[in-house]
Amino acid sequence: MAKAPKKNAFYAQSGGVTSVINASACGVIETARKHKDKIGKLYAGRNGIIGALTEDLIDTSKESKKDIAALKHTPGGAFGSCRYKLKSLEENEAQYKRLIEVFEAHNIGYFFYNGGGDSQDTAHKVSQISETMGYPITCVGVPKTIDNDLPITDCCPGFGSVAKYVAVSIREASFDVASMAKTSTKIFVMEVMGRHAGWIAAAGGLATEEKGDAPHIILFPEVELDQEAFLAKVDKTVKKYGYCSIVVSEGVKNKEGAFLAEAGGKDSFGHAQLGGCAPVVANLIKDNLGYKYHWAVSDYLQRSARHIASKTDVDQAYALGKKAVEFALKGHNAVMPTIERLSDEPYKWKIGMCNLADVANVEKMMPKNFITSDGMHITAACRKYLSPLIRGEDYPPYGKNGLPKYIVLKNVAVEKKLSTSFEI
Amino acid sequence: MAKAPKKNAFYAQSGGVTSVINASACGVIETARKHKDKIGKLYAGRNGIIGALTEDLIDTSKESKKDIAALKHTPGGAFGSCRYKLKSLEENEAQYKRLIEVFEAHNIGYFFYNGGGDSQDTAHKVSQISETMGYPITCVGVPKTIDNDLPITDCCPGFGSVAKYVAVSIREASFDVASMAKTSTKIFVMEVMGRHAGWIAAAGGLATEEKGDAPHIILFPEVELDQEAFLAKVDKTVKKYGYCSIVVSEGVKNKEGAFLAEAGGKDSFGHAQLGGCAPVVANLIKDNLGYKYHWAVSDYLQRSARHIASKTDVDQAYALGKKAVEFALKGHNAVMPTIERLSDEPYKWKIGMCNLADVANVEKMMPKNFITSDGMHITAACRKYLSPLIRGEDYPPYGKNGLPKYIVLKNVAVEKKLSTSFEI
Repeated sequence: MAKAPKKNAFYAQSGGVTSVINASACGVIETARKHKDKIGKLYAGRNGIIGALTEDLIDTSKESKKDIAALKHTPGGAFGSCRYKLKSLEENEAQYKRLIEVFEAHNIGYFFYNGGGDSQDTAHKVSQISETMGYPITCVGVPKTIDNDLPITDCCPGFGSVAKYVAVSIREASFDVASMAKTSTKIFVMEVMGRHAGWIAAAGGLATEEKGDAPHIILFPEVELDQEAFLAKVDKTVKKYGYCSIVVSEGVKNKEGAFLAEAGGKDSFGHAQLGGCAPVVANLIKDNLGYKYHWAVSDYLQRSARHIASKTDVDQAYALGKKAVEFALKGHNAVMPTIERLSDEPYKWKIGMCNLADVANVEKMMPKNFITSDGMHITAACRKYLSPLIRGEDYPPYGKNGLPKYIVLKNVAVEKKLSTSFEI
Repeated sequence: MAKAPKKNAFYAQSGGVTSVINASACGVIETARKHKDKIGKLYAGRNGIIGALTEDLIDTSKESKKDIAALKHTPGGAFGSCRYKLKSLEENEAQYKRLIEVFEAHNIGYFFYNGGGDSQDTAHKVSQISETMGYPITCVGVPKTIDNDLPITDCCPGFGSVAKYVAVSIREASFDVASMAKTSTKIFVMEVMGRHAGWIAAAGGLATEEKGDAPHIILFPEVELDQEAFLAKVDKTVKKYGYCSIVVSEGVKNKEGAFLAEAGGKDSFGHAQLGGCAPVVANLIKDNLGYKYHWAVSDYLQRSARHIASKTDVDQAYALGKKAVEFALKGHNAVMPTIERLSDEPYKWKIGMCNLADVANVEKMMPKNFITSDGMHITAACRKYLSPLIRGEDYPPYGKNGLPKYIVLKNVAVEKKLSTSFEI
């Protein structure tokens, strides 16, 4: 009897990248390499799923062991990511058929998709079409999103490092403001990401360990801004502590339900592109209370800050990538590895598993009991949840020149096998 | 014969604080403590020189050895700083007389003033009035400014760490943008400080090690923005590399000589308060070239980012504080310790000395040959100068909770001896 031919694997990164998505890639690739008896080559999609649709595949076997290992400490998406959401099967079956066509041409039997909710939806659909079309592909999602808004998994890789960046940065900037407040800046506003869920803003609250510690106020997308109460708290804080330090989520809305600041554009998923609500908040304070302010918008800096990554986050990102491959090899299909929290103190976790069908397009909001009753800070319950996620430091190696040594892969293209092309 | 009574010392922090100004404070205090035969108590001004004027002194002898040592890794100004420029002797002699009155009341014979150009001017004036009034005070400045714009000294403590933060951050964010560029963000604009001198913006250029490396464009306050040439370079960069990463100084001006963005306010030295030129630049690109952008304004985050401080900078900040005390003990008056560069490769430096009269109110601009002929990047000469300043990592200690352990001193007040008060 002829031995079943070894199948190749496909891996792609999707959506906004994080400082640890490459750690997941590292976990996927290193684990696939350990199972050469079962997995042939591991191809990466150049720019995510677009690489599959356009048959633009990267041969990761051309990368050295050392370079793949360096992915673990390199931010960004090493193979390119994309914001490209596949339509529903009914709306655009051709896209899915094209994927299968490319997978078949390259003997791909494993599909690892590293992304957030939209991407897990895609992975789920690929598993469905694969069944319909009778071309078997094992589809396993690898969770990723700084927004921490995937369901089922206790947390999402990428989030812990942003959380650490935000908590460390607001603490540092607040030390600065505290020393300037007597004659100069009394207000500091730091804007962070988080369109609909306030997880990232909440993380700033970890810097508040004792009464009076900054940040004094956190504005969440979950809580409509009550201007009067907000200004009263700012004023009270300045009068008591000399200054007021504020973390504000980009997704904060006013009482009319409109975003405080809209950059005007929309991303290709149709979400409004936000940014710049920090100056709006700062000016609101200046106009009403007259305090001198400074504001920062950390934007991409927060989600790429590998230099201050959380070790917990890096470890989990790697473990999820590793486990995704192991699940696939065990024959699990249309699933996603998750983080299961076993205990808060000491923090213990293990990898669990859930069905892609249960993850796709579900957004996990902050529990109501994570926000204080005045809507402007985090509760002890929130702190208990968040605290372990920022623990541990995992510094990248630095060169003698004082800069972190991040890897840029060769990303050698796989020779095309199809004569057909596909319009994105 | 009666032994001359030991004089006390006064130390104050002035102007915008940095992530290493406390390292200088640590150098001053630890060195003063080593010379208890000559220096009595070391008092710090609460909120800088205002603490001296209002007789609000802090007794640093109440702080433990361990807590003083922790200053070396703590950002912000541990005793409070201020933006308060003393007027000229002619305009407000009363201010200077008040200082002498307070110093005399507390038997202060040494005056250490840790600040930038304005502050060194104050220190110089104090030395003049001390002479005029016949109350001897040894005045030694301790340089500090993230702007790196003090003359004579090869560099200024505080700058190296901001430089490292900017170079690391723009590298990280650019890895992010590069992976998003295919379908999403193609432009990233990071705004950094630097009102009149482009030193901080220039530091971003250190991340460009090979052709094509980000940042691709740097906008300096020294170069009026040539909109047409800028947009052409942005477009060319996107077409060649897929994305364009830009560092822009807050002080960039248009062809009419106006700041691209003015926050509207002025600080108490009368300088315009800037901020928010990143969105202006981003929108300029969007409106003319249509590329999707992201922008960040790092503001205080950059100058307080002790977590990514340059070891060179920390070492120099400490050494300058230490040497200031040693100079004073040797009888040098109206001087400031400086960094003298002995060689670029290997980087070697030592502490020199200059007269406060030569430092006061002189702003060191970037040499013309540090900016490329197109006005949008740094030259090899600039790189040679800047590179050593960001070398070495000097991480603060972290708690088990994943947060840096920064010290908040007790800051115990010295009992007042004067019955008079002073209106600030």
